[in-house]
Amino acid sequence: MVKKLMKKRSKKIGLPPGTMVFVGDKKVENVSISVIDYDQDHYEARQLQKIEEVFPFKKTPTVSWLNINGLHEIEILEKIGSHYDVHPLILEDILNTDQRPKVEVFDNYIFIVLKMITYNAVKEDVVIEQVSLLVGDNFVITFQEFEGDIFQPVRERIEGGKGRLRKSGPDYLMYAIMDVLIDNYFFVLEQLGETIENLEEKVLVDPNQMIVHDIQRMKRELIFLRKSVWPLREVISNLVREDSILIKPMTEPFLRDLYDHTIQVVDTVETFRDMVSGILDIYLSSISNKMNEVMKVLTIIATIFIPLTFFAGIYGMNFEFMPELHLRWAYPALWGGMLTIAIVMIMYFRRKSWL
Amino acid sequence: MVKKLMKKRSKKIGLPPGTMVFVGDKKVENVSISVIDYDQDHYEARQLQKIEEVFPFKKTPTVSWLNINGLHEIEILEKIGSHYDVHPLILEDILNTDQRPKVEVFDNYIFIVLKMITYNAVKEDVVIEQVSLLVGDNFVITFQEFEGDIFQPVRERIEGGKGRLRKSGPDYLMYAIMDVLIDNYFFVLEQLGETIENLEEKVLVDPNQMIVHDIQRMKRELIFLRKSVWPLREVISNLVREDSILIKPMTEPFLRDLYDHTIQVVDTVETFRDMVSGILDIYLSSISNKMNEVMKVLTIIATIFIPLTFFAGIYGMNFEFMPELHLRWAYPALWGGMLTIAIVMIMYFRRKSWL
Amino acid sequence: MVKKLMKKRSKKIGLPPGTMVFVGDKKVENVSISVIDYDQDHYEARQLQKIEEVFPFKKTPTVSWLNINGLHEIEILEKIGSHYDVHPLILEDILNTDQRPKVEVFDNYIFIVLKMITYNAVKEDVVIEQVSLLVGDNFVITFQEFEGDIFQPVRERIEGGKGRLRKSGPDYLMYAIMDVLIDNYFFVLEQLGETIENLEEKVLVDPNQMIVHDIQRMKRELIFLRKSVWPLREVISNLVREDSILIKPMTEPFLRDLYDHTIQVVDTVETFRDMVSGILDIYLSSISNKMNEVMKVLTIIATIFIPLTFFAGIYGMNFEFMPELHLRWAYPALWGGMLTIAIVMIMYFRRKSWL
Amino acid sequence: MVKKLMKKRSKKIGLPPGTMVFVGDKKVENVSISVIDYDQDHYEARQLQKIEEVFPFKKTPTVSWLNINGLHEIEILEKIGSHYDVHPLILEDILNTDQRPKVEVFDNYIFIVLKMITYNAVKEDVVIEQVSLLVGDNFVITFQEFEGDIFQPVRERIEGGKGRLRKSGPDYLMYAIMDVLIDNYFFVLEQLGETIENLEEKVLVDPNQMIVHDIQRMKRELIFLRKSVWPLREVISNLVREDSILIKPMTEPFLRDLYDHTIQVVDTVETFRDMVSGILDIYLSSISNKMNEVMKVLTIIATIFIPLTFFAGIYGMNFEFMPELHLRWAYPALWGGMLTIAIVMIMYFRRKSWL
Amino acid sequence: MVKKLMKKRSKKIGLPPGTMVFVGDKKVENVSISVIDYDQDHYEARQLQKIEEVFPFKKTPTVSWLNINGLHEIEILEKIGSHYDVHPLILEDILNTDQRPKVEVFDNYIFIVLKMITYNAVKEDVVIEQVSLLVGDNFVITFQEFEGDIFQPVRERIEGGKGRLRKSGPDYLMYAIMDVLIDNYFFVLEQLGETIENLEEKVLVDPNQMIVHDIQRMKRELIFLRKSVWPLREVISNLVREDSILIKPMTEPFLRDLYDHTIQVVDTVETFRDMVSGILDIYLSSISNKMNEVMKVLTIIATIFIPLTFFAGIYGMNFEFMPELHLRWAYPALWGGMLTIAIVMIMYFRRKSWL
Repeated sequence: MVKKLMKKRSKKIGLPPGTMVFVGDKKVENVSISVIDYDQDHYEARQLQKIEEVFPFKKTPTVSWLNINGLHEIEILEKIGSHYDVHPLILEDILNTDQRPKVEVFDNYIFIVLKMITYNAVKEDVVIEQVSLLVGDNFVITFQEFEGDIFQPVRERIEGGKGRLRKSGPDYLMYAIMDVLIDNYFFVLEQLGETIENLEEKVLVDPNQMIVHDIQRMKRELIFLRKSVWPLREVISNLVREDSILIKPMTEPFLRDLYDHTIQVVDTVETFRDMVSGILDIYLSSISNKMNEVMKVLTIIATIFIPLTFFAGIYGMNFEFMPELHLRWAYPALWGGMLTIAIVMIMYFRRKSWL
Repeated sequence: MVKKLMKKRSKKIGLPPGTMVFVGDKKVENVSISVIDYDQDHYEARQLQKIEEVFPFKKTPTVSWLNINGLHEIEILEKIGSHYDVHPLILEDILNTDQRPKVEVFDNYIFIVLKMITYNAVKEDVVIEQVSLLVGDNFVITFQEFEGDIFQPVRERIEGGKGRLRKSGPDYLMYAIMDVLIDNYFFVLEQLGETIENLEEKVLVDPNQMIVHDIQRMKRELIFLRKSVWPLREVISNLVREDSILIKPMTEPFLRDLYDHTIQVVDTVETFRDMVSGILDIYLSSISNKMNEVMKVLTIIATIFIPLTFFAGIYGMNFEFMPELHLRWAYPALWGGMLTIAIVMIMYFRRKSWL
Repeated sequence: MVKKLMKKRSKKIGLPPGTMVFVGDKKVENVSISVIDYDQDHYEARQLQKIEEVFPFKKTPTVSWLNINGLHEIEILEKIGSHYDVHPLILEDILNTDQRPKVEVFDNYIFIVLKMITYNAVKEDVVIEQVSLLVGDNFVITFQEFEGDIFQPVRERIEGGKGRLRKSGPDYLMYAIMDVLIDNYFFVLEQLGETIENLEEKVLVDPNQMIVHDIQRMKRELIFLRKSVWPLREVISNLVREDSILIKPMTEPFLRDLYDHTIQVVDTVETFRDMVSGILDIYLSSISNKMNEVMKVLTIIATIFIPLTFFAGIYGMNFEFMPELHLRWAYPALWGGMLTIAIVMIMYFRRKSWL
Repeated sequence: MVKKLMKKRSKKIGLPPGTMVFVGDKKVENVSISVIDYDQDHYEARQLQKIEEVFPFKKTPTVSWLNINGLHEIEILEKIGSHYDVHPLILEDILNTDQRPKVEVFDNYIFIVLKMITYNAVKEDVVIEQVSLLVGDNFVITFQEFEGDIFQPVRERIEGGKGRLRKSGPDYLMYAIMDVLIDNYFFVLEQLGETIENLEEKVLVDPNQMIVHDIQRMKRELIFLRKSVWPLREVISNLVREDSILIKPMTEPFLRDLYDHTIQVVDTVETFRDMVSGILDIYLSSISNKMNEVMKVLTIIATIFIPLTFFAGIYGMNFEFMPELHLRWAYPALWGGMLTIAIVMIMYFRRKSWL
Repeated sequence: MVKKLMKKRSKKIGLPPGTMVFVGDKKVENVSISVIDYDQDHYEARQLQKIEEVFPFKKTPTVSWLNINGLHEIEILEKIGSHYDVHPLILEDILNTDQRPKVEVFDNYIFIVLKMITYNAVKEDVVIEQVSLLVGDNFVITFQEFEGDIFQPVRERIEGGKGRLRKSGPDYLMYAIMDVLIDNYFFVLEQLGETIENLEEKVLVDPNQMIVHDIQRMKRELIFLRKSVWPLREVISNLVREDSILIKPMTEPFLRDLYDHTIQVVDTVETFRDMVSGILDIYLSSISNKMNEVMKVLTIIATIFIPLTFFAGIYGMNFEFMPELHLRWAYPALWGGMLTIAIVMIMYFRRKSWL
């Protein structure tokens, strides 16, 4: 769990800033590079063998979306860094995959760090992957840790050729990528919401100790989600307020819309946290209640039979001179007395509403 | 419960922004459209068959209030969008019925998202419905998810013809609609307040495990209410500060008054949350207390009779040489000893104030 | 309890704003109206039969303090409203007796809503009453819900004729009224402080379930107090910052002093809340502790006597061939064994420091 | 405890503002007045019989530090008030000894309210005393409730004649007084720190119910400390920002340093609160744990012997036809069976790791 | 634990400000002084015997990094103070080793207080050491309490001669020192993260009372860490915003990067706190659960055998007239009845799902 939170930064202690060390696990075998180049009339998509193949696109006025899966080959980043004139600290940030979501606006590009979350239904686990964006005047570069992403719909909308995407610049592409990423938060929240409902049902039907672990796990998933999405608010509101020439006024309402979505995600995460706390409360009170039930049963049985057993014990004694033992009616009388005691006890428990 | 919080946004992942998909359940059979057109001297109310019938009203100087129940027929919205020149993202927001309350001010209209809450007394459930308002210079359009609403008093005041409503413009109509909507929050809070009082009484008279669920449910209703009303504060204070020409200075004191009401609703919701937490505390401590009671009874009975039974057991043994058994006074003496033990025990419990 | 928090606003849903409906209970039989008119040289106090009798005072340069007890006769308010030119929404606010403390500054008057609290020593209950002030250039009008108030000292100081009050304008009278009102908060806090001390003592001497209710009640009184006094801070700081010509610079240091008092009330309420929470903690831990005590007694008795009883049971069996039964020393030996067991047990409990 | 928090303000309800009533207990027999008058070359210290003796110092350019112990003789204050031209509300604040720390800057003087805390090692109690400062262009007046203070080091530094104090004005003297006062907070915190460490050790070695009271008491001491020191931050930062001519630029770095100290005190108090809460958690969990231990012992003994006693009971019955009773090997066989049962039980408890 | 938080400030009460008293323990035998002097072409490192040897470096344009381990020799500080013209309060702050992290910007130097943390793996303890920096136009002076530090990598990078460090001024050296210091926080957090994971595992496998102490200790380490790192945010953001000529624009992006790291540390500490709280919740609920288990076992055994033992007792009585005793089938019938009771009980427990 802690691993999910922190990458092994200790690898880097004392290295000069801007030293590029990939702190994560090597998550893909080979780094795969793809480019989509488009404008209103033109569309081209390619898998690249070498990063150098993308450099000619920089000079064309068309928008090029360069996507890189896998960060462990440092030299690719270095080449991009020098070709697109990126500050070494930014390159370092791309490799530090436990970065907080943030935005940095430079003259020639905008750098955005985001968290892409996906839900692994098998492991019931939220997977968090860092996605970095470099947005320039005619390019968008996205860096991902894993193979596979959630941007397919954006690619299809570009390929489809209709709609605003083909007509707009890289700022709108940036928006489209962020939009699909945040929409995905809703999807993951839906899954978590279902898990929470299951937990709720479980705590009513069959509350057991395992549920505490499930609750704690859910709490943590929500903490991680919150950590991913909370700074997003600031990121997007900075993008809106920032008057970079790289973001056209036309894109602003879309970013504002994105901002609303982000707030909604944050809200939902908070509500989920409240709900999960509520489930814990129900569980704890149901344990107390059960214990109470158990105690009552023990007490009822014990308080009825312990005195009776005592009387039975009395007349089991072997004293020579116990006059009662020789009375004919003593045995049935004792039974009568015992029944009376039992009934009185039961009535007492009734009045205390323990029965 | 989670469904109440989130609509199935996942339907929409990857679709271009501004794509109109209704994320809620289809809540009405047919979309019903009505219009009320009025100025100081003139009043007209009509059910419309087709949305196009309303378009002529746009050119008249009278105020028209167009109300649409049911959002699943996208084409109606599209027609309104193009006729009234509404931004596609706004149309999308109208359909996203899990929107957060918000206001957006454009040059030619103001867009407001609100939550209308009603209390279903049978299910003891708060029903939340999204109401969107488009306010222009001579029209107000309201979009609702369900048939049936709480705006009847506003309609009657328009029809009645007296009062400020007929003399004022669409900004005042907007205020009147929001006012009745927020007044309704007080009504729902009254109902919830009664339920809380019942819970309180119940926790005193007959505390049982079900009360925890009731408390959790109430907590959640309050969370949902809070989520609906908290952003309202900001919405209304934005409306007041915003110097849109669509809102006349005369309407401002009314909006400020509305703002006060909203704060009061928020305050009450917070107080209710404190009260509900207090009920949970009472419940938990009453469980502890009950367990304590049960334990005491068990302990008293057991500690009195267990030693006595032991002595009875002793003289039930079959050893050949037990001189006591042959003493005439042994049996009554044992009884005496036993009574002494019992009395000492009872006195001990008295001193510990367990009895 | 909830009634204390909310008035029946539902009476008002859908009524046009500014409609005057008294939402509280009719708390006095007859509305009583009194006026005190004074300047440095002149003093006059009168009970009025009709509200119209006060109108001539409006033209004189003397300060008139009009006090109205009872709000259910709407027409009185309407007359004041039209004579003193008060906005209808303000009149509505006067009648809404669950208003939040607030201040509104107009050109010709200042409107202040405050909460007067008194402590009902019999019911151990804090009674909250809304007091509204209208402060003009030569008048102060106070509206109260009940007969009887805490302003007697102010009246006496006016009548006495010495001191700053007679020499100053209505702004200083406003200050004097607010000052006595906030001083009264300290008085009520003193009473509550005593109750809290009683609770504290009780939780030490005789903790029982009733204390939880007392704690919850105290918590709630504090919540209500907090709701009454928290917005007061803002009210007074607004009065200080506001540069209304109705408030003279000479009065400002007095208002700042009032502000300090308000902060102190808020501070004390917060400290009281912490103390009450602490009492609950003590109570809960003392229950746990008691249960622990009870369990220990049971365990000690049971673990000593249950094994002994078993051995007594063994030698009470009727097997034909039990050689021990025929040994002369078996019976005393068994006693010896039993004592040993008992002593070992007791030593074990000593070591565990259960005894 | 509550008395420590609140003085009997109720004495004052309804009195005109500026009325001087001492709300505290009369803490000294006689008011004692002393003055220290100094500049770089000159030093004079005197006990005064009458307050009038100090008035001549006002005209000299030397710095005079007038210290007054005991506040119950109102006339002394009145004379100072009229001689040094102090606002009546300030005089009232000096007497209200439950004032919140605050600063008020006037043209001719600065008024500061502070809390001097001392630790009563015998009663393990923090004693809070109000110290008020009036700082003018050539005087500092300090008002204390009790005889005896912590300012001796300052007096000695003045008398010693070396160092910055003799060369600087009353603003630096004010700083020196405040500095020694805040240094004393650290001293008291050290004492409390030790008490907290003792509590910690006690909760590990011998946790009993008394510790909850100690924890609550400590919590409260910390609340009182916090109330004393929290507003100090604001007081000092106001002094720094305020550009009163009474505070010379040279003194500002010293005040900033004081501000740092105050923040550190606040920080430490917060940390102490966290630590004390932690101790409560340890105590509560150790009670639960102990109860668990007790229950286990009871359960082990009872579950082993109850079944065995049952079997002993069976063969103690007096039925005529019980064939087992006549078998030679039945008695040892029963012992065997019983031992088996006991061993199985013990193994079961082992597996459950109860033993 | 408290010692870690507070140094013995009481040594200093009443001393004039700027009096240099070292409040910590004397942590090194001898104060060791070293200097590194460098520019792009030149590198020199030396151990100094006397502080005076460093003074000539002040006149050269090269950057000199003077490092002092051990603070108890006050005269060294005094000499530095007079030679580098440092305010006495700053010197005092260097000696007060429980200072809060802070920055103070003067015309000729910047003063920074930081906390260097290291993890003592043997004692499982976080060691906090104060590091103070004085940054001038051609020098950096670092003051440490202990021998040994984490700055070796910086020294090596200077010695190595490549990279930005040799080409830049003291501001960049300051950054490099702070960077390695904050990187070390990540390292310590990794260690703590592992300890937390161990705690988590332990609470699942073998929850016992000791874990509460471990949790409390971890909580406290996190509180101390938080206290060390929280003010760092402000320190660094002040450094960025401050337009001191001592900090060159080129260094600013590096400081911003540092700021991001600091926020991440703070975030991680917060998440760790949440995780540790979660572990406590799991522990507490597992205790409750265990107690529940224990109670169930006791209850099952007792409620089955207590009634049976009663019946055995009945037929162990010695009444003369007990007809059942003489019936042939009575004994087996009793066994039958007992088995029935036992089975019914077991079925009852099954239905209650206690078995």
